[in-house]
Amino acid sequence: MSALTIGVDLGGTHIRAVAFDDALEAVARASAPTAAEEGVEAVVARVAECVREVAGTEGLNGVGVGAAGLVDWRSGTVALASNLGWRDVPLRDLLSAALGDVPVRVDMDTNAAALAETRLGAGRGLRHLLYVTVGTGVGGAEVLDGRLYRGASGGAGQIGHVVVDPAGPRCGCGGQGCVEVYASGAGIVARAREANVAGELTTAAIFEAAAAGEPAAGAVIDAAADALGLALATYVNLNNPEAILLGGGVADAAPSYRERAERTLRQRALPALADIVDVRPGALGGDAGAIGAALLLSEDDGRST
Amino acid sequence: MSALTIGVDLGGTHIRAVAFDDALEAVARASAPTAAEEGVEAVVARVAECVREVAGTEGLNGVGVGAAGLVDWRSGTVALASNLGWRDVPLRDLLSAALGDVPVRVDMDTNAAALAETRLGAGRGLRHLLYVTVGTGVGGAEVLDGRLYRGASGGAGQIGHVVVDPAGPRCGCGGQGCVEVYASGAGIVARAREANVAGELTTAAIFEAAAAGEPAAGAVIDAAADALGLALATYVNLNNPEAILLGGGVADAAPSYRERAERTLRQRALPALADIVDVRPGALGGDAGAIGAALLLSEDDGRST
Repeated sequence: MSALTIGVDLGGTHIRAVAFDDALEAVARASAPTAAEEGVEAVVARVAECVREVAGTEGLNGVGVGAAGLVDWRSGTVALASNLGWRDVPLRDLLSAALGDVPVRVDMDTNAAALAETRLGAGRGLRHLLYVTVGTGVGGAEVLDGRLYRGASGGAGQIGHVVVDPAGPRCGCGGQGCVEVYASGAGIVARAREANVAGELTTAAIFEAAAAGEPAAGAVIDAAADALGLALATYVNLNNPEAILLGGGVADAAPSYRERAERTLRQRALPALADIVDVRPGALGGDAGAIGAALLLSEDDGRST
Repeated sequence: MSALTIGVDLGGTHIRAVAFDDALEAVARASAPTAAEEGVEAVVARVAECVREVAGTEGLNGVGVGAAGLVDWRSGTVALASNLGWRDVPLRDLLSAALGDVPVRVDMDTNAAALAETRLGAGRGLRHLLYVTVGTGVGGAEVLDGRLYRGASGGAGQIGHVVVDPAGPRCGCGGQGCVEVYASGAGIVARAREANVAGELTTAAIFEAAAAGEPAAGAVIDAAADALGLALATYVNLNNPEAILLGGGVADAAPSYRERAERTLRQRALPALADIVDVRPGALGGDAGAIGAALLLSEDDGRST
C-alpha cells in the first residue's frame, strides 16, 4: 500500500485527525480533547498521538494541520490563537520533531477548509471565492485566481473584522462594530443580553425565540443577518468573487438567517458584481478542515510572499 | 528608431496621449477635450487623432487606454462610464479599426495607474498593494501577488463602495453610506451643503474653511478622513497589503486629511495587519495613467478569468 497523508483539525475544544490515501479517501479517524489548559507540549503530544493512531503502520507522506488562530504558514508558527491561549508557538517544528521528522505544514483552519471546498467541494471549478464560517466567531478565507490568497503576512480573509457600524460595540480585535460582534454566535448572545431578550441566552435558544415570533430576539437575529450581508457586500465590491461559500454552525442554524444575509448582500453590493455571485453552503461538512489540511502538503503555494 | 507604445488616459473631460520609447521614456504628448456629448464616434476619432499626433511617422507597437469607468478588459469594452455617458462601448475594436488594426488594450484608468505605480513608481518591488485615488469620486485598484487583480468579472477594487455607515446617505451606486459619499470631492461638497457650511461650496473652499477653523467645515473634513480611514481598515483586514498608495486631487489637497485617514486606519484595522502597512503617495503624478496604459500592452495577464 502507498503512504498516507494525515489532515489534522486543531480546534479550541477538539483535535481531529483523518488519514487519507492517495485518492484522498478517508481511511481512518481519531480525535481527542484539545485540553489547551495543559500547555503546548501536552497538546502537541496529543496531536502526535492522534496522527500515530490513524497512520497505523503505513508510511507517512506528511501531516497538514489547520489551526484555529492566526498562523504564519511559511514558518508554521501559530502567531495567535486565543482559544488555545497560544502566542508564537512553532507548531510545525514541534510536531515534526514529535513525529520523527515527518513533513508538516500548518495553516489557518479557515484556509484549509477553503482549499478543500475549492479543490473537492462546493467551489470546485471556481477561481474566485470567499469561504465564510459563522460559528462562535466569523472567519473567512479567500481563493483568488484559483489559489489561497494569504496576503502580505498571512492575515488575509478576516471577513469577521469588516466594520459594519463604526459606532458599534467593542470587538475582541480592539476595534468597534466589526461584523463579528453582531453576526457570530457570541455576538448574537451578547446583543440579545443587551436587548434584554427573555429566556435562555444561547444561540440556539435565541434563534428559536426569533422563529417563535419573540420581537426582541427577532430583531437581534435580523441585525445579525443584515450585518453579515453588509460585510459580504463590501467583500463583493472589493474582490468581485464568483461565489461565497457560507457555512458554520450559526449560518446553518436557520435558513431564514442565511436568506436574509444573502438578500442584504444583493441589495447592498454593486448590482453588476452582485449579479454574478452565487451564495451556497459548503459541500464537505465537518471534514473540510481535515481534507484541506491534508491538501496543504500537495499545494505548491510559493505565490504569496 | 524602434517602434513606440502609446498610452492614453481617457477621462471625462480630457484625452491625454503619451508616446513612449522602448525604455518607457515619454517622447511626445498630445491632448484634446473629450467632449463626450458629441458621441462615441467623435470621441474615438479624437483619441485616434491624439495617437497619430504623438506617434508621428514611427512604427507603433500598440495603444493602451485607461478609461474612467467600468471596463471589461478581456473584450476591451467600456461597460459603463457615467461621465462619458457610455454603456457597452467596444472601445478596443473601434479604436483598433480607426488606427488601421493596431493592437489596442483597454482597462480601467485606476488599474492602469496602479500598474504603473507598481512597476515603476511608489509600489516598485511590492507585491501586495492597494492603489486609491480620491478625486471627484473614490477609485481603487488592487495589486495582489505582484499582479493586477481584476476579480471574476473585472470589477475588483471598488474601494469607493465600502459601506462605512449602513444608514448613511444614498450613493450613486444604489447603495447607502459608501465611503465615496463622505470622502470624495463630490461627497465633501454634498455633506457640507447638508451641514449648512457657509461660503463657497467647492472642495478647495471647504478645505480652506476647515483649515481656518470653521467648525462645520472642519467636521465635514474630519468625517471624510475618518470614513476613508475606516474603508482602508476594512481593506487591510480583508486583503492584508504591504502598502496603500493614496493619491488624487482631494487626498493631495491637505496633509491633515491624509494624516487623519491614516490615523483612523491604524486605529481601526487589526493591529498585526496595520503594523505592516505603509501608506504613501504615488510617485508618478499625472503620468501614472498614461504610463500604465502603455504597460497594458506588455503585461501578460491571462491570470484573471
